[in-house]
Amino acid sequence: MTQTELTPTSQDTDKVGAIRAELPAVQRYAYLNAGTNGPLPRRSVAALTQQAEIELEEGRINPVTWEHILASLNDTRAAVASLLGCAPEEVALTHNTTEGMNIALMGIDWQPGDELITASSEHEGGLNPAALIKQRYGVRVHLTEIGLRDCDPVQTLAKLIGPRTRAIVLSHVSWSSGAVLPLKEISDLAHSVGALVICDAAQSCGMVPSKVYDLGVDAYACSGQKWLLGPDGTGALFVRKDQIDQIKQTYIGYSGLVGRMIRDDAVFTPSEGARRYEAISFYHPSLKAFHAGLTWIADEIGWDWVYRRIHELGQYCYDVLARIDGVSMYMPKHAIAGLVHFTAEGVAPADLTAKLAADGILIRHTPEPQLNRVATGFYNTEADIDRLAVSVARIRAELA
Amino acid sequence: MTQTELTPTSQDTDKVGAIRAELPAVQRYAYLNAGTNGPLPRRSVAALTQQAEIELEEGRINPVTWEHILASLNDTRAAVASLLGCAPEEVALTHNTTEGMNIALMGIDWQPGDELITASSEHEGGLNPAALIKQRYGVRVHLTEIGLRDCDPVQTLAKLIGPRTRAIVLSHVSWSSGAVLPLKEISDLAHSVGALVICDAAQSCGMVPSKVYDLGVDAYACSGQKWLLGPDGTGALFVRKDQIDQIKQTYIGYSGLVGRMIRDDAVFTPSEGARRYEAISFYHPSLKAFHAGLTWIADEIGWDWVYRRIHELGQYCYDVLARIDGVSMYMPKHAIAGLVHFTAEGVAPADLTAKLAADGILIRHTPEPQLNRVATGFYNTEADIDRLAVSVARIRAELA
Repeated sequence: MTQTELTPTSQDTDKVGAIRAELPAVQRYAYLNAGTNGPLPRRSVAALTQQAEIELEEGRINPVTWEHILASLNDTRAAVASLLGCAPEEVALTHNTTEGMNIALMGIDWQPGDELITASSEHEGGLNPAALIKQRYGVRVHLTEIGLRDCDPVQTLAKLIGPRTRAIVLSHVSWSSGAVLPLKEISDLAHSVGALVICDAAQSCGMVPSKVYDLGVDAYACSGQKWLLGPDGTGALFVRKDQIDQIKQTYIGYSGLVGRMIRDDAVFTPSEGARRYEAISFYHPSLKAFHAGLTWIADEIGWDWVYRRIHELGQYCYDVLARIDGVSMYMPKHAIAGLVHFTAEGVAPADLTAKLAADGILIRHTPEPQLNRVATGFYNTEADIDRLAVSVARIRAELA
Repeated sequence: MTQTELTPTSQDTDKVGAIRAELPAVQRYAYLNAGTNGPLPRRSVAALTQQAEIELEEGRINPVTWEHILASLNDTRAAVASLLGCAPEEVALTHNTTEGMNIALMGIDWQPGDELITASSEHEGGLNPAALIKQRYGVRVHLTEIGLRDCDPVQTLAKLIGPRTRAIVLSHVSWSSGAVLPLKEISDLAHSVGALVICDAAQSCGMVPSKVYDLGVDAYACSGQKWLLGPDGTGALFVRKDQIDQIKQTYIGYSGLVGRMIRDDAVFTPSEGARRYEAISFYHPSLKAFHAGLTWIADEIGWDWVYRRIHELGQYCYDVLARIDGVSMYMPKHAIAGLVHFTAEGVAPADLTAKLAADGILIRHTPEPQLNRVATGFYNTEADIDRLAVSVARIRAELA
């Protein structure tokens, strides 16, 4: 960590200026929705378009191409492993969090009467596979209030968990409320009955520290296109090495097995490590872009600085919004990091999103509970948040 | 169809010249491996990089972005549906043939003792899911010689098929031999016992006519990046509307269910049509490229002309190679279209591929049986094939 990274965030105007110069979209808008899609770095798009031009001119079938693709896959797995504090062999590259959640959830050999615990506040990336498992395999799904304001996650789990619990499916950071869940306590509880913790990391990976062995999770499904500033169609799934046999392959690709089926009586061995779960092709230049962005943040900006700045801006955003007449904050300030949920009295969340977009301020609204959501990125400024607050106050005042 | 499209292929020098001007890689090499990856059209890469630049400058979270993405998905499904002669609602967009094969195969509610018939000549895209189904669900897999030279597909199937047969898993065009299988007869036989025909169309879609209702198949899994000249990470799966209930969702995405899981006792309805199978994000600009290429071929070149030219060049290639001393052709000439398999006595297939690559001639070798494989694209010229023949003859002569 450099000296710059230790100075208070709000003093780092040069650093923030340099970051913003690399992210054209944050100059155009008050860009406050990394929770849907992060802004793209110039160097990422440059890496992608350069590779796209090589493919156009050179084709994709000359003998060196495959080696380049393998190198690109390896480099990207290694960059993600470094971020998650795990071995590269514990990382499968995916196209989004949903793919990772499906791999982990469908990989369990579900039996009728098995139980799964999740929460109504979860994203469809986890909820839809849970619904399918319920229907297709006769699994009992417990739908808790975990992630919402008035629910104690550990107490709630402790009441429900039992010998038939096979998996706990929860987010690290809730897309619905911004709550940062106590994953270590949840994991310890799950492991006490032999259940797996399958974690939706769409809103956490790149927002808060995500060292998977500190969190205790068994599977951690990340999106590339949100807080990691990658292109759409990128992501990664961590599967803990000592749990890999509990999560079978469901979709299987070209390199998923050792050997080839050549006899009716053959028995198969999965390929080594988590890449056994990679079955679905990438647009390879998009991996170059994903890798370029991860490397930029890790080597030139510093993840510790990023996490701290996101958190500080989240707290700043909470304070600024909370002071506006008619605005109610949802989650307590101490329970959140970079997602800030609120409502403005008299303005439906969808309407507020639209009115702010007309002012060049990009946030979103979430369905259950119906709230507005601000995502504070490390590239945002206090001025972005002040601009949001001025618009919210004006929209509220126009109602009077 | 225009007048030009009805003149003999070999006379269409202007048309072929215009096509080749759009495909830089075919000017650089004797590009004879569409079976791995087709050459990319300039307009496809331009559409992709243009969209990449918009995403960089504008971000991906302003209100119109999602509408553009939905339009792009709809346009691409419609273009594929037109090629396959089915309804857009019968098309799920995928990232490769393997994803489509996994969706179809893992969607069956396999029971121990069920049977699946496939062939050792199949690609891992179908064979690996079959191996996994055998291991994970106790299904009996029959591994036939279908697709190889001395095997009659319909007779072979007729002997094996029975009341426990749930699926026939075969390619339309074999990657191992080039054989074009009689899918209509195979489908009629399968349907006589209530089995599904799940077809690997990686080598057929874009090479031979692929009207799925003429072929009688229940599922047809296509690659974008081969004969359709799309980017990596594109593809499509046809699922016949009246069989959609036989193929359950396995991975499920954001829009896979009607409604949202909000009660423990909820029952779920899959979303309408084949898009229920789409669970995994795309690099959206790659769909723009895929669509641009499909539109170019359909509207400006004509699929009937494309199929005819590929077939004529395949037959020409067969004749030219067969005349070389020491070259043995694998499949009979009448049984193939655009994939021509051969061996050159005294030169291992992998070595021949490498020696030809050094001459700027790109073909490949296949593992079982060990052969060399030439793919004749509609953009190739007789001169490309003559150049291949001269090099093969020279490499053979150097051994003497």
